Amino acid sequence: MEAAVKRSSGAVQEDRLWQRHAEMAELGGTPKGGVNRQALSAEDAAARTLLMSWAKARNFAVFTDAIGNLFVRRDGADAKAPPVMSGSHMDSQPTGGRFDGMYGVLAAFEALEALEDAGIRTRRPVIAVAWTNEEGSRFQPGAMGSAVFAGVYKLDEMLATKDWKGVVLKDALGETLKAAPAPMRDGNPGFDVGFYVEAHIEQGPRLEAAHKTIGVVTAIQGSRRYIVEIDGEEAHAGTTPRAARKDAYAAATRIAAAMYEATNDADDTLRFTIGHVEVLPGSPNTVPGKVTFTIDMRHPDDAVLEAHEKKLHDIVSRKARPCPARIERVTSVAPTGFDTRVIDLVRAKAQALKLSHMDMPSGAGHDAMHIARLCPAGMIFVPCERGISHNEIENAAPSDLAAGTRVLVEVLQELANR
Amino acid sequence: MEAAVKRSSGAVQEDRLWQRHAEMAELGGTPKGGVNRQALSAEDAAARTLLMSWAKARNFAVFTDAIGNLFVRRDGADAKAPPVMSGSHMDSQPTGGRFDGMYGVLAAFEALEALEDAGIRTRRPVIAVAWTNEEGSRFQPGAMGSAVFAGVYKLDEMLATKDWKGVVLKDALGETLKAAPAPMRDGNPGFDVGFYVEAHIEQGPRLEAAHKTIGVVTAIQGSRRYIVEIDGEEAHAGTTPRAARKDAYAAATRIAAAMYEATNDADDTLRFTIGHVEVLPGSPNTVPGKVTFTIDMRHPDDAVLEAHEKKLHDIVSRKARPCPARIERVTSVAPTGFDTRVIDLVRAKAQALKLSHMDMPSGAGHDAMHIARLCPAGMIFVPCERGISHNEIENAAPSDLAAGTRVLVEVLQELANR
Repeated sequence: MEAAVKRSSGAVQEDRLWQRHAEMAELGGTPKGGVNRQALSAEDAAARTLLMSWAKARNFAVFTDAIGNLFVRRDGADAKAPPVMSGSHMDSQPTGGRFDGMYGVLAAFEALEALEDAGIRTRRPVIAVAWTNEEGSRFQPGAMGSAVFAGVYKLDEMLATKDWKGVVLKDALGETLKAAPAPMRDGNPGFDVGFYVEAHIEQGPRLEAAHKTIGVVTAIQGSRRYIVEIDGEEAHAGTTPRAARKDAYAAATRIAAAMYEATNDADDTLRFTIGHVEVLPGSPNTVPGKVTFTIDMRHPDDAVLEAHEKKLHDIVSRKARPCPARIERVTSVAPTGFDTRVIDLVRAKAQALKLSHMDMPSGAGHDAMHIARLCPAGMIFVPCERGISHNEIENAAPSDLAAGTRVLVEVLQELANR
Repeated sequence: MEAAVKRSSGAVQEDRLWQRHAEMAELGGTPKGGVNRQALSAEDAAARTLLMSWAKARNFAVFTDAIGNLFVRRDGADAKAPPVMSGSHMDSQPTGGRFDGMYGVLAAFEALEALEDAGIRTRRPVIAVAWTNEEGSRFQPGAMGSAVFAGVYKLDEMLATKDWKGVVLKDALGETLKAAPAPMRDGNPGFDVGFYVEAHIEQGPRLEAAHKTIGVVTAIQGSRRYIVEIDGEEAHAGTTPRAARKDAYAAATRIAAAMYEATNDADDTLRFTIGHVEVLPGSPNTVPGKVTFTIDMRHPDDAVLEAHEKKLHDIVSRKARPCPARIERVTSVAPTGFDTRVIDLVRAKAQALKLSHMDMPSGAGHDAMHIARLCPAGMIFVPCERGISHNEIENAAPSDLAAGTRVLVEVLQELANR
């Protein structure tokens, strides 16, 4: 067993992995070095075609499902054993980076190749998967393919969604599968999976700041999103005394200031963001009559989110006066705790490979949060430069990508033999 | 003298004055009961034509000047004496009210008619004026006609300004004067004026709140406008710890909260407004990378404005960190103190007519602030409903409009005999 482990990680080829990232980055590549490869676009189809061509060259089986998830399978000794699966997504933000999602797909594919190159036969099949539409920037909601696979969203409803231009997802998917044809697995998406492990760039600065190579992901934090609406009264900025004003922006500022203060936790774990703000009518010499802003709040512990939602209601009721205000909770995603067996195995393999590592929750949502409902699941993070993601300047080091893949292949190999 | 005073104010006709407001409100009238009669539009030309038709019916002389200011003159005994002048503007905001500006023009015209009806001969000519483009909503800057008349802005520069669609003011003025022709006074705008008195709705709530009919306007407060720009760094809202963020909106909130606090004066005289706010990229799950907002600050005492500008610089330098921030002062208009002789006369005439009155500064800018540079000047305010202006629901009581006009005509009569 010890000998086999050494062989599979030793077969990971850093250059091959890096080169594949470079080839994928040409599909939807932007002048600034990022990618615009939105879900079910021509660029997405090109990425699928390229991945399938690599699979064909290695004699791996490929198939797709009714939501367009793309699977590459390396058979195991026991064809009936539920497979071990690894992957992520190939779609990007409109001004996205070349590693977000794509790394997880290419690391999984590299793991299949490394097992093949090392001549290792596993009991379970090992599948590399590219989930459809994780970003949710063209069709909403995001993490769609994995959610449909896990039965979280209904296939029919997702096929009926439209992009900003009115294109129906079902039609875009049809075009994509016509341009990048793969054998279709009948019936609803979703099948028995033994274990799921997803590799991803961190998309945050913690690994880099701590000088660690491997993030052992313990959970995906919960997130809640709110829209706060405040009604004021438009008035002349020169003539209206403060006492006579219903200034919606003054009220918004009182609420925002109190919430920034209330979310200032000692260990800097709670994430609180006001990202979208609209002030109407938006004239410099008119007292604002209406303000709308969003709040995005995340924490690994749902009770902390619940407590801060209460604080939000309390602060709005005290600080909005004299302006009426409303809070709408638009999303609430509970935290995902990963399986201890997978977490422990990732940590142990990083240790065995003498790679620096730390346990951490994921700040961002990932496909793994849905698949964790089906089977024991976990994630492996590698650093990205300055933590910058959802940005064309997103970057990662070839050696870190390879290190994460070495951990991944050893974890997959061991799980595939359980 | 006492007898003559009684006669002129007694000749003011409330019904005639109200009816003229109603007729003018049809020119550019909106479904909500307001007006859209922007400067040098077809509606503006129609208002000019209507005013000239009324002047012609009373045998008053009319003339215009190179910036399109429109004058209606009732001759005095001494043709060489500099005239007494009164008026305001006939252009409106895109969603404006029927009294803002128009009241000052119609009150002045009513004063000419009252003097005529009462058979009063004054020494100086009395002129009613409609200044071009006070609102500045189509062509900028506002208060343009009076500023050119007073030599504050240069005629050539103003004629070259363009509206949002690219129409040059000179061309729009040409069309207007073709549609509403009037004898042109040669040379640059501006001529000797003895005194200037402007009637206007208050556009604020103070008279109504104090149950006073006449506002004796002592000054126009000074105003300064700023643009504050804050640079942050876009980052993932889920993954980026607070300590690693350069959150431009958190910085903007700290600055705004401190400024609302710093401008909270005991007597509620300082006007502080944040009316325009832009937050980029404006995505709910991205830490804002850039925030731009405006500050509009007004006070009758320039030293107070200066002191609060210093506070703004201090607050921005302390609160913006870790985000770089810039403050640009885009306008600075010093307070206008009106002439004591005119102020005292307005107060005395209101007193003599047994009208409740109070001294007050003007919160808004008016054409009178420019003409006050040329001659002794003052203003008379009447209440408007709930202080609401720059709004189609702007409203005023016929009796208040007539009361202001009675004060105006007595003031003009006395000044015209000085």
